[in-house]
Amino acid sequence: MSVKPTVLKLGGSVITDKGKKLTPNLPAIERLTKEISRANVSSLVLVHGGGSFGHPVAEQYSLAEGYKDSSQIMGFSMTHQAMTKLNKLIVESLINHNIPAVEVQPSSCVVTKAGRIQIIEDRPLRKMLEMGFVPVLYGDTVFDSETGFDILSGDQLVSSLAINLNAHRIVVGVDVNGLYTGDPKTDSAARLIRHVTLEELKKLEHRIEGSKVTDVTGGMLGKIFELKPAVEQGIQTIIVNATESNRVYKALKGEEVVGTIIER
Amino acid sequence: MSVKPTVLKLGGSVITDKGKKLTPNLPAIERLTKEISRANVSSLVLVHGGGSFGHPVAEQYSLAEGYKDSSQIMGFSMTHQAMTKLNKLIVESLINHNIPAVEVQPSSCVVTKAGRIQIIEDRPLRKMLEMGFVPVLYGDTVFDSETGFDILSGDQLVSSLAINLNAHRIVVGVDVNGLYTGDPKTDSAARLIRHVTLEELKKLEHRIEGSKVTDVTGGMLGKIFELKPAVEQGIQTIIVNATESNRVYKALKGEEVVGTIIER
Repeated sequence: MSVKPTVLKLGGSVITDKGKKLTPNLPAIERLTKEISRANVSSLVLVHGGGSFGHPVAEQYSLAEGYKDSSQIMGFSMTHQAMTKLNKLIVESLINHNIPAVEVQPSSCVVTKAGRIQIIEDRPLRKMLEMGFVPVLYGDTVFDSETGFDILSGDQLVSSLAINLNAHRIVVGVDVNGLYTGDPKTDSAARLIRHVTLEELKKLEHRIEGSKVTDVTGGMLGKIFELKPAVEQGIQTIIVNATESNRVYKALKGEEVVGTIIER
Repeated sequence: MSVKPTVLKLGGSVITDKGKKLTPNLPAIERLTKEISRANVSSLVLVHGGGSFGHPVAEQYSLAEGYKDSSQIMGFSMTHQAMTKLNKLIVESLINHNIPAVEVQPSSCVVTKAGRIQIIEDRPLRKMLEMGFVPVLYGDTVFDSETGFDILSGDQLVSSLAINLNAHRIVVGVDVNGLYTGDPKTDSAARLIRHVTLEELKKLEHRIEGSKVTDVTGGMLGKIFELKPAVEQGIQTIIVNATESNRVYKALKGEEVVGTIIER
């Protein structure tokens, strides 16, 4: 591929109303679409999360635990269908802003093995990028060669795609400013980490493991865990608050922005 | 695969109002969903056409001629998006009738070469069938290794899938009773052919070539042309009128029904 693509992740908590089942955050989708359009990145892959579209049904049917009995089958269909519905809103918004977006359905081209990507058919995707399209993927229900099916997180997908496509940069848009020393939602002393290396992350993880708290950073370390393989390959990764105007825009342009840069 | 699947094609002229752009035929979709549900085929793959969803935009942007200039790029995105919209209506109707339908997006897992299927990643699809899901595919805009992109017809897809999956039977639902000796819409002397072999088809094609008319059978020979490779492999193929109640049901059950059976 001539131009190295940028991989942009938009978290489910940004593009949906997490409190209300199957409710998109349309103003946020519209604003982010405009930021993507203005940034005009020459080669872009978009991956989005599920938020209130993916999680409620997936949890109700325990899809993440794999296939246990036939009562989950309809739950799989419904979860996948809900995700394609959310994707449609995003792709339509992009098309309305003249961005040649094309849905790429992970369940159609990925097979996992015990939850980790085993097969990813990326030839259609490479062809899309080569021609100037913007592929739009998402965290999805996928088939698993060991457990029957599974939930593939958008974060695992981002990392895998970034490595496969030899990405230039990963931009992760979430609903907090980046990685904090504690949970910014509950701990007022928590400080935003502007720059972190994999070595420093390891120390942070040890400290957190020691504290016996699931994740004092408010879930951000789990997200970063999935992104680490891409960072290890030398792909610069930046986490920004996508609920704040222009942060995603600036990150896509490579401009100085409030957030956490993770580097090798 | 333990159970040989049945591949059902539903033509675009059956499930959409061909005269009105982007207009589904919801009563037909509902009725056919019920027929599929009642037939309760143990392993089923569904492929549908585009009708008034796929064709108008695809033609406007000359997508079937391959990539010529960047003005077609948005047309590709819009055509694909329209097809996923139609698919969503069908999958939703199936889910509402308790059929575990899952959209499988050809553009995500197929690459053509000069219009013919070159790569088809069917491992997710095989896994779906193994687990009892009903994959739902469609004629789609796809990427092409020679021409950039192309339109993959539902009929080419049906034939290719039937061969790959070693199908038991192909049922093709169209808006006429089957293959006629002439065009039933304009020629009152046209007679329905109830049974035809590949050898007899060849003679029919020669006769038609001789007559210098594009396709006196009202387009049905072109459709059969795509299905022939599957018939050659010994897969029984039956064409029925899906606008008439119970024809698709009977064909799925293997019961006696008005239509054209094509056999090796």
